[in-house]
Amino acid sequence: MTAPTSGTRPDDARRHNRSALLRRLHVGGPCTRATLATELGLNRSTIKAVVDGLAEAGVVTEAVPSQRSGAGRPSLMVLPQPQSAVVLAVDVRVDQVAMAMVGIGGQILGRHSWNLHRTTRLPGEVITHVVESAQLLRDELAVVVSGVGVSVPGVVRRADGFVHEAPNLGWRDVALGQRLGAVLQYPTLVGNDAELGALAEHVRGAAREASDLVYLSADVGLGGGVIVGGRPLRGTRGYVGELGHILVRPGGRACFCGAQGCWETEVGEPALCRALGLPEDTPRGALVAELRALAAAPGEIDSTLGEFTEWLGAGLVTVVNMLAPELVVLGDLLTALPPRVVDRARGIVHERSLVSRAVGGTRITVSPLGRDARLVGAAELAFEQVLETI
Amino acid sequence: MTAPTSGTRPDDARRHNRSALLRRLHVGGPCTRATLATELGLNRSTIKAVVDGLAEAGVVTEAVPSQRSGAGRPSLMVLPQPQSAVVLAVDVRVDQVAMAMVGIGGQILGRHSWNLHRTTRLPGEVITHVVESAQLLRDELAVVVSGVGVSVPGVVRRADGFVHEAPNLGWRDVALGQRLGAVLQYPTLVGNDAELGALAEHVRGAAREASDLVYLSADVGLGGGVIVGGRPLRGTRGYVGELGHILVRPGGRACFCGAQGCWETEVGEPALCRALGLPEDTPRGALVAELRALAAAPGEIDSTLGEFTEWLGAGLVTVVNMLAPELVVLGDLLTALPPRVVDRARGIVHERSLVSRAVGGTRITVSPLGRDARLVGAAELAFEQVLETI
Repeated sequence: MTAPTSGTRPDDARRHNRSALLRRLHVGGPCTRATLATELGLNRSTIKAVVDGLAEAGVVTEAVPSQRSGAGRPSLMVLPQPQSAVVLAVDVRVDQVAMAMVGIGGQILGRHSWNLHRTTRLPGEVITHVVESAQLLRDELAVVVSGVGVSVPGVVRRADGFVHEAPNLGWRDVALGQRLGAVLQYPTLVGNDAELGALAEHVRGAAREASDLVYLSADVGLGGGVIVGGRPLRGTRGYVGELGHILVRPGGRACFCGAQGCWETEVGEPALCRALGLPEDTPRGALVAELRALAAAPGEIDSTLGEFTEWLGAGLVTVVNMLAPELVVLGDLLTALPPRVVDRARGIVHERSLVSRAVGGTRITVSPLGRDARLVGAAELAFEQVLETI
Repeated sequence: MTAPTSGTRPDDARRHNRSALLRRLHVGGPCTRATLATELGLNRSTIKAVVDGLAEAGVVTEAVPSQRSGAGRPSLMVLPQPQSAVVLAVDVRVDQVAMAMVGIGGQILGRHSWNLHRTTRLPGEVITHVVESAQLLRDELAVVVSGVGVSVPGVVRRADGFVHEAPNLGWRDVALGQRLGAVLQYPTLVGNDAELGALAEHVRGAAREASDLVYLSADVGLGGGVIVGGRPLRGTRGYVGELGHILVRPGGRACFCGAQGCWETEVGEPALCRALGLPEDTPRGALVAELRALAAAPGEIDSTLGEFTEWLGAGLVTVVNMLAPELVVLGDLLTALPPRVVDRARGIVHERSLVSRAVGGTRITVSPLGRDARLVGAAELAFEQVLETI
């Protein structure tokens, strides 16, 4: 009656320790060998062996810390070398594609972006432009790319990066992961933009300490990403939900999706333009300027954005009651809302959500990453895989 | 540079194999040693050792299968012995408490229930009655109880079974798990009723093959339990969401929770009574009889339940769009809805939910467990722990 389960082979353990240590450095930044040993629960000799191996491969360097604390021999600082593991992050938005080369540790080494119009938004056009720009960026920065992460505003099958429907782009059934991967020749992962926004907030933004969070971002559409117990929430066959299409207003505006009064139709970018008396296709810069002006005139906020705030709050109550998150991060365009609007939405959640009361008050906060959240999330998506294979 | 992770000790492996095998028998029913070996990925000698140990302890028996397939020595059937591991399941509902002793394998060995009224609904009263009834049932059946699972219609902290708020019972801040456990002297776990309904459907009901499902049950309140990737969905600090309090109808009826137009106020039991022109406190039996009569007169269904069906469908669209489940199981009172109503709700989801379209059509089905779902779920909650410790 002996153990039939296959044992842990030394090779597996070594690889596991190596990627755990890299992940710690990538997310938490440089630290001493002693801290690594404590945080990872490994003994000093194991840490030394792993760090020595990584230093030999040029992935980390070691340095004497500038400030010594206490007596005794100082523990060496271990620093990840950004150029040693680089990923390409691509954020395909409705009006723009943003790209960045991101080094281990999260440093953005170089960027490129271009605007999209109806004619340049076709999948083939976008793929060609991404590939060309990737080569230019790579050559310019003289980096070796280890992986690619792509954010798309649509319903994505994670296994192979197949984009089922990206309505605001006008995309349907695009084998984006496969097509990009085939040309770029790097491992390419594709994720839903809201899910990647949530990942970014979790790893590098407002939700670093939270393991249950909702990230909500408004663009032409409205998307929400959910992390539960530290992991992205996904439904059947890996599809993520579409928070923008919870129904908040029966008999409301018709949504492209076939429903009426979706959260997206009531608090997306066009809805915000309408509330402000602007044309629905007002450029983002002008819209943000208008919101800034309004924030400086608090007397007008309630009459202008009162109803918008109600729909924002109503959707938040539904989300909080369903998912019991610790906090909700408002991202992207929603970061430009006047503080009074965010306060009022917060008030609505606290007044009307019994789950918020049960958990001691769900926090509603504004993203510090702003427009970069999805790009950062796309990089983290790529790093999840890359850190396993270094 | 050797493996620092603690190895798998033979004792752990033996215990792990034992509980995996018990879980297989508990959920899937009797099967041959050969099937156990295949399904659990263990070799025959390990299976033999585990089964022999369990047989010696009286937890299983072995028998020659009645039908022999093919030539050769027949593989012995392994049968769990229901009396050998018994849990007490308690379903605290708004109008009733139901209890059952459930044996390993899921067989209900004995039951007891009593109605609740305003005066007998107090936590102290309920606890006293549960304890007395447990002793009577135990003596009557001459069983040894290994654990207790309790279902409560409220917000429950799983760690210690603390009931934060069970509004329809009028309970607030009741240390139910602690109080029951202290008197019964058995390990006692408490769960939210909808979460346990979902667990029951997953283990023994309509969702055995699904790992992403939503269970929706209507009683005085409306509750929903969610299983994602085979595990219950829980938010911060283990709290589960409250699907009954997603907002479906702005400016709708005031809900006790502080919001208006919650899903619960529009499709709970009182709402169904109102739609049928019955008093809100119509007894369950009379309500179900009325629904049966209506099912036989399809011409009247749309005019009577048309609006009810719209709200049911609207909430389902929100839930499906947010969680992308493979199927939604309608439980409890909702199992009594005329099939035409369920068909129409299904139609609403298929027409209006883009996520349903993306996943190839979310299934909407009616629970085969009916009113027993939470009781079955409470038993499974207890067994989760008990099977680990046999």
